[in-house]
Amino acid sequence: MSAIATRLIALDWGTTSLRAYRLGEDGAVLDKRGLPWGIMNLPVVEGDFSRAAGFAKAFDEACGDWLQSSPASPLIAAGMVGSAQGWREAGYVDIPLAVAHVGKQLTHVDLGAGRTLHIVPGLLQRAALPNVIRGEETQVVGALDTRQDSDDVLIGLPGTHSKWIRVQDRIMTHFDTFMTGEVYAVLSQHTILGRTMEHREQSDPAAFERGLRVASSEEGRAGVLSNIFSSRTLGLVGQLGASSQPDYLSGLLIGHEIAALKATRAAAACTAEPHIILIGDDKLCARYRTALSLYGLTRLDIAAQATERGLWKIARQAGLLN
Amino acid sequence: MSAIATRLIALDWGTTSLRAYRLGEDGAVLDKRGLPWGIMNLPVVEGDFSRAAGFAKAFDEACGDWLQSSPASPLIAAGMVGSAQGWREAGYVDIPLAVAHVGKQLTHVDLGAGRTLHIVPGLLQRAALPNVIRGEETQVVGALDTRQDSDDVLIGLPGTHSKWIRVQDRIMTHFDTFMTGEVYAVLSQHTILGRTMEHREQSDPAAFERGLRVASSEEGRAGVLSNIFSSRTLGLVGQLGASSQPDYLSGLLIGHEIAALKATRAAAACTAEPHIILIGDDKLCARYRTALSLYGLTRLDIAAQATERGLWKIARQAGLLN
Repeated sequence: MSAIATRLIALDWGTTSLRAYRLGEDGAVLDKRGLPWGIMNLPVVEGDFSRAAGFAKAFDEACGDWLQSSPASPLIAAGMVGSAQGWREAGYVDIPLAVAHVGKQLTHVDLGAGRTLHIVPGLLQRAALPNVIRGEETQVVGALDTRQDSDDVLIGLPGTHSKWIRVQDRIMTHFDTFMTGEVYAVLSQHTILGRTMEHREQSDPAAFERGLRVASSEEGRAGVLSNIFSSRTLGLVGQLGASSQPDYLSGLLIGHEIAALKATRAAAACTAEPHIILIGDDKLCARYRTALSLYGLTRLDIAAQATERGLWKIARQAGLLN
Repeated sequence: MSAIATRLIALDWGTTSLRAYRLGEDGAVLDKRGLPWGIMNLPVVEGDFSRAAGFAKAFDEACGDWLQSSPASPLIAAGMVGSAQGWREAGYVDIPLAVAHVGKQLTHVDLGAGRTLHIVPGLLQRAALPNVIRGEETQVVGALDTRQDSDDVLIGLPGTHSKWIRVQDRIMTHFDTFMTGEVYAVLSQHTILGRTMEHREQSDPAAFERGLRVASSEEGRAGVLSNIFSSRTLGLVGQLGASSQPDYLSGLLIGHEIAALKATRAAAACTAEPHIILIGDDKLCARYRTALSLYGLTRLDIAAQATERGLWKIARQAGLLN
């Protein structure tokens, strides 16, 4: 255990994993660890099968020793731990919401011994088709931490469900969700498209780019439900090998995501090219960089350590670091 | 066994089922039967596990007795039996193709004893994104059998993969495939959307129609990959009950299918409202009728017995009924 003083213990607690950070002065990461105890995969406590017991045990394994060495450390968590299936439901705060105000409505879990875990709320966009994020709000705060942009920023978090968050004058004004990653997975694993596919370690950038271009082509008008069938038919006529089909399909879906994202921006009269910040896995961010560039969106940065920086910043907003 | 003379034995042989028809004068259906022996589910022959043996046994169970009573009857089959995984690969014929010419390129399977099974080819549309049909070409021929329309006809075959076939002056000029049914199934069974759904026997027409309207709404611009997430979020905010979510999602997908179909027609300068003929399961045709009507397409008929009428007509085209 380092002797450097702990200022905050911060948890990124999702569906399938739990990441813990011990943060020092100015949010410097002093220690971190990852555990498999996502909220849908809690550890078992002999003699007490309640979810509360599972949460408490996971919490203790994640940071019990840090807390013992530094009992006064404030505690904060973001992610699905605040969902209806989480440790305590942290609700949703409506947008528009200033980035600086995310920490104003934390939910408290009393851990006993005078200790409180503070959980970050999700965000809700009320609309004809409502939209929600949970966990990503913290990454947005982290990604914008050191930035002073006052113009239009678009933050992209590609993944199972890709999230795109529009930030104008440091106010979160709109977000979109695309189920791209999950749709790709089920199409590959459970439909006829998977039957002709061969998955290889090595990716096929040309096939990926070919897929990306479909949405903006004349054929793209037939839409995703039709275009995906071409992964099979191009194979049938000998124009797309089995091992190229996974990347082709991935490109096809991501291309439709980016094309639709542009369409929603155009409809909202967001005509200037946005400054894009991507947050996520390096390989996936690289794929999205390629896609965005092909669709003319090139003002792009990739943000690192957005979660831990966001948790620090939100704790400060909430007055936990005084 | 009826004493009325058999003129044709016709098989509709798909992936999961085999339907056999004994046809008399003018294609009148004298007998029919359904068997579970689709090409991916052939019966087992003790001592000979070859696929050829399975096909022969399924064939014998489907129509061996009819053939014994009427040994000179011509034999015809359509569907996946002519695919690469079928009894004999019947290839694909390119479109544009006149409806009257489907029977000009049948593939022959020698059954011994001077008997031949004639297999109908599939159709191929060569394009940047190629498209194929197999089995539906026979239904198109059947549906147009008694019609003398020379104007624009659009034939829809909703299902696992919905097919839409454009027929102009009795020539098949274009077709589209939408994987609507299969996408609905995997989204319901294998994604987060299924987790909040409750499936009931009774359908929910209001939820279905609500879903149908999404594609044509402002929100529809965000596309299928985004819109589907609303099945979950509308539930989350208490605006869509668990038992309404299946019909809502179904409507949402079918609405996007019809909207995209209209977009491809507009792009091809097919501006007149087409005469639509639907072929398929009654309930599904009713759902599509609702969808089409909501999207302004109301010149619509539903065709019955398209497969058996098509097989009869194609046999005539091929000279098998002389």
